[in-house]
Amino acid sequence: MQEVKHADELFKDFKAQSISEFFKKNAAMLGYTGKIRSLTTIVHEGVTNALDACEEAGILPDIHVRIEEQGNEHYRVSMEDNASGIPLRFIPQVFGRMLAGSKAHRNIQSRGQQGIGVSGAVMFSQVTTGKPTTIYTSTGKGPIIKALVQLDVKKNLGEILEKEKIANKWDWRGTIISLECKNVIYNKSRYSPYNYLRMTSISNPHSRITFIEPDGTRILYERSTNLVPEPPKPIKPHPHGATPDDLITMASNTAKKNLSQFLSHEFVRVSSPKALEVCKSAGLSDKMNPKRMTWEDAESIVKALSSIKFFAPPTEGLRPIGDEEIRKGLESTLSPEFTYTITRAPQTYRGGILFVIEIGLAFGGKAGRGGVELIRYANRAPLIFDQGGCAMTDAVKSIDWKRYGIRDIEKAPLTVFINLVSTHVPYTSAGKQAVAYEEEIFNEIRNAIMDAGRALSKFLSGKRRLYEKKSKMNTLLRYVPETAQSISLLTTAEKDGISEALERIINEKYNMIVEDEEEEPEPQESEETEGEEY
Amino acid sequence: MQEVKHADELFKDFKAQSISEFFKKNAAMLGYTGKIRSLTTIVHEGVTNALDACEEAGILPDIHVRIEEQGNEHYRVSMEDNASGIPLRFIPQVFGRMLAGSKAHRNIQSRGQQGIGVSGAVMFSQVTTGKPTTIYTSTGKGPIIKALVQLDVKKNLGEILEKEKIANKWDWRGTIISLECKNVIYNKSRYSPYNYLRMTSISNPHSRITFIEPDGTRILYERSTNLVPEPPKPIKPHPHGATPDDLITMASNTAKKNLSQFLSHEFVRVSSPKALEVCKSAGLSDKMNPKRMTWEDAESIVKALSSIKFFAPPTEGLRPIGDEEIRKGLESTLSPEFTYTITRAPQTYRGGILFVIEIGLAFGGKAGRGGVELIRYANRAPLIFDQGGCAMTDAVKSIDWKRYGIRDIEKAPLTVFINLVSTHVPYTSAGKQAVAYEEEIFNEIRNAIMDAGRALSKFLSGKRRLYEKKSKMNTLLRYVPETAQSISLLTTAEKDGISEALERIINEKYNMIVEDEEEEPEPQESEETEGEEY
Repeated sequence: MQEVKHADELFKDFKAQSISEFFKKNAAMLGYTGKIRSLTTIVHEGVTNALDACEEAGILPDIHVRIEEQGNEHYRVSMEDNASGIPLRFIPQVFGRMLAGSKAHRNIQSRGQQGIGVSGAVMFSQVTTGKPTTIYTSTGKGPIIKALVQLDVKKNLGEILEKEKIANKWDWRGTIISLECKNVIYNKSRYSPYNYLRMTSISNPHSRITFIEPDGTRILYERSTNLVPEPPKPIKPHPHGATPDDLITMASNTAKKNLSQFLSHEFVRVSSPKALEVCKSAGLSDKMNPKRMTWEDAESIVKALSSIKFFAPPTEGLRPIGDEEIRKGLESTLSPEFTYTITRAPQTYRGGILFVIEIGLAFGGKAGRGGVELIRYANRAPLIFDQGGCAMTDAVKSIDWKRYGIRDIEKAPLTVFINLVSTHVPYTSAGKQAVAYEEEIFNEIRNAIMDAGRALSKFLSGKRRLYEKKSKMNTLLRYVPETAQSISLLTTAEKDGISEALERIINEKYNMIVEDEEEEPEPQESEETEGEEY
Repeated sequence: MQEVKHADELFKDFKAQSISEFFKKNAAMLGYTGKIRSLTTIVHEGVTNALDACEEAGILPDIHVRIEEQGNEHYRVSMEDNASGIPLRFIPQVFGRMLAGSKAHRNIQSRGQQGIGVSGAVMFSQVTTGKPTTIYTSTGKGPIIKALVQLDVKKNLGEILEKEKIANKWDWRGTIISLECKNVIYNKSRYSPYNYLRMTSISNPHSRITFIEPDGTRILYERSTNLVPEPPKPIKPHPHGATPDDLITMASNTAKKNLSQFLSHEFVRVSSPKALEVCKSAGLSDKMNPKRMTWEDAESIVKALSSIKFFAPPTEGLRPIGDEEIRKGLESTLSPEFTYTITRAPQTYRGGILFVIEIGLAFGGKAGRGGVELIRYANRAPLIFDQGGCAMTDAVKSIDWKRYGIRDIEKAPLTVFINLVSTHVPYTSAGKQAVAYEEEIFNEIRNAIMDAGRALSKFLSGKRRLYEKKSKMNTLLRYVPETAQSISLLTTAEKDGISEALERIINEKYNMIVEDEEEEPEPQESEETEGEEY
């Protein structure tokens, strides 16, 4: 029998590691896996940051992305935005420290949400090339700051290696991040920066994106609207979503001195009378100092909150794409025969986290990808990886498409577009490419698709009737020569004249029916219909 | 036009958060999503830690898991192991600090690997119940320590709220973790702790697991071998896997004073003469202090390393399950008609990270789950969630099963068992339920399945021939009464006697053929065969 080792020996190697060390070792969790995906991840992190920054500052985004080849599997990626710029003292934190940022602790819709992404890009660059990342930034007045930033992985801290002030003759405002990376490949596949930017442009019609490919090709995604979206607003939590742990955390941070004020101030939709009602129902004094709240008190408050009705959370803080914009995007890229889009009413998950589902369905034309194509977005950022592990995919798979006239889903020219908008997207991983299962989100996606499916079904059954009529017409037309011949023999009239007359009659009759139908479609319960096989 | 906000205003909310805050907000990334999965995740974290601890200490695992119902969706989970125990001063770090542990920085096969899991369980308990976790532990001599541990989420630090020393009259050695959790559900589904433990027992035949369900049912998974697996050994990195960044990191930690000693000491398979060869090929002095290595030096060394041949990495540090044990597991749980198992030769990915693929294929009996069932393990720990996002699933899906005689994969009674063993499993998420795509791993899984598929194909084509012969035999037997009647009329012999004789001849002929076949199967290139539809 082998020797049993004592704990003291086993624990001598015990150590803590920093979050940066963790993600360096597990770079796949940030999306750095595969040569194509790694490059796209860098672009994704830069562009989502740029769009978030413009939106928060109330600026129409004008974004430039340039990828230059520097050698074999070796590129430089530069990304420029025209947002607010970054004050010098925040540069090391923004680009060199993971889990630092202004978004994670606010209840606000954003693409970034975590404060990991762009530091991850800086780290990937550093680990593959040994070089720091170059930042140019200006807040509009004063000089442009140029800084070389790197990440102290062990300490998870950003370091500025060199900095320089450049006279800002142009009153330029914005940020440029420029970094090199190795072991990556550029191409134009669906997983490439090329497609990523195309998809970003569809979901951000207010943005102008200029992309310069390694071969010098310049691609411009022009904005289709000049309307600056209003900056997303922080939304206070809704009382129905609160857990005891939330209450205690909020109480430890509040400036309010008594329970009822605490409740009406920290939550949305809790008026002063409602707050008093909650205190009473929880059996607690409304004068109680919230900092003295015990776990049992918090549980009583949660119980009281859940038994009282409040208005639904306000939604003006959310920024969906809008069904019109989704329709435009699908029609311009897919030229489908049929399009249906909807921005649904806001819902909440886990009791209180606000979200909106937007759906687009496109059929025919260039829709589909040898079967259903799924286009996923979260807070307007394209999700192009990890489709198999995403709750959106599961929702689409759970649909019984036969009910909507699609008999062979493996061959249908069908594209399903989904955008999930929320103050907190429940990603499965720090790489932010797949949404975790939350029952309410899953159901809402299903319901939205089923709505769209009913419209599709109507379209398809109309299309089928049209097809059947055309078949009948063609059959009749095939008999025209024979019939004309017979009539000619019986009546001694000219055969060609009879043929022409018959053809005219048939054409008129069937064209008329088709037009009739378009004006007044036959009412039918499409839910029960099995349509044509496509 | 709305007002453009200045950077100073936008950055006033900039804050850093701790890794614990991050995972509290994104608990789905740790597997805390859904009421059933959350409970299973807790059991998973406790049991993988227990098995790792036993293995490292060289102890046959004897693990007790008890789940008690405490109220509606409210349970207590207690897990006991007989491993080395935990010295008092490490308790706060083991249970209350994320990214602390003895595994992450060593190149060693383990289930845990990250140093996040069990602190995540403590946090989930705390967040849903407001209560600390109770730990009992003893290193064998001296008292049993009882400690109440909680996590300071903001600081990512463990705190001991209370501690007590209990006389250890029984010389008990091991650790008990006992915690409460709310918003969870216990059942016996495939996603439950019940199935998780059943699957763990299959892949860890040296472990005894006692499980007490909430209704008091006691389930014993007895060990099927008394052989203690040798503790996995740290494996030094292989020179072919090194990146320039690895070299610089290793150089900053080494005690060696010159480059050639550094290389031969820090890498496996690099002898002193090989190290000199590397230095020469890299154009660097072998006397150079490794701490002075520049990025360019490191790149030269990587280039030199990749141009020189080294022995494959040693594999004695890896602990696969073994094909015999996999066969036993599949046969005892599925009673299949056909089983094929193989533990493949070790491979490396990313140039140098060692891994082994084990495959089991079971056909017929209880195999399959209305189509192919996939059973995934990584380092012997069952992966029961996130199947859709796992490279193992993609590898299985990429197989053209028709080539192996499976015509309708949606209905085939087929189970595919995969275990990936490695010093570093490339998980897609901190929840450790899906493996990221790495080309070498993907290909190796495919090759292993194709090997197994060829064996399956042979089995199925034999089965098909058997079926065809039986059909022919039955057809002939059907004509016996008529033929006997005719012969009887022609020969005036007794009809019944003729029937019997004919039946005997037919039976003998076909049984003989079948036996023949079993002894000497017809050689055939099964890769090209399309077998029977199953």
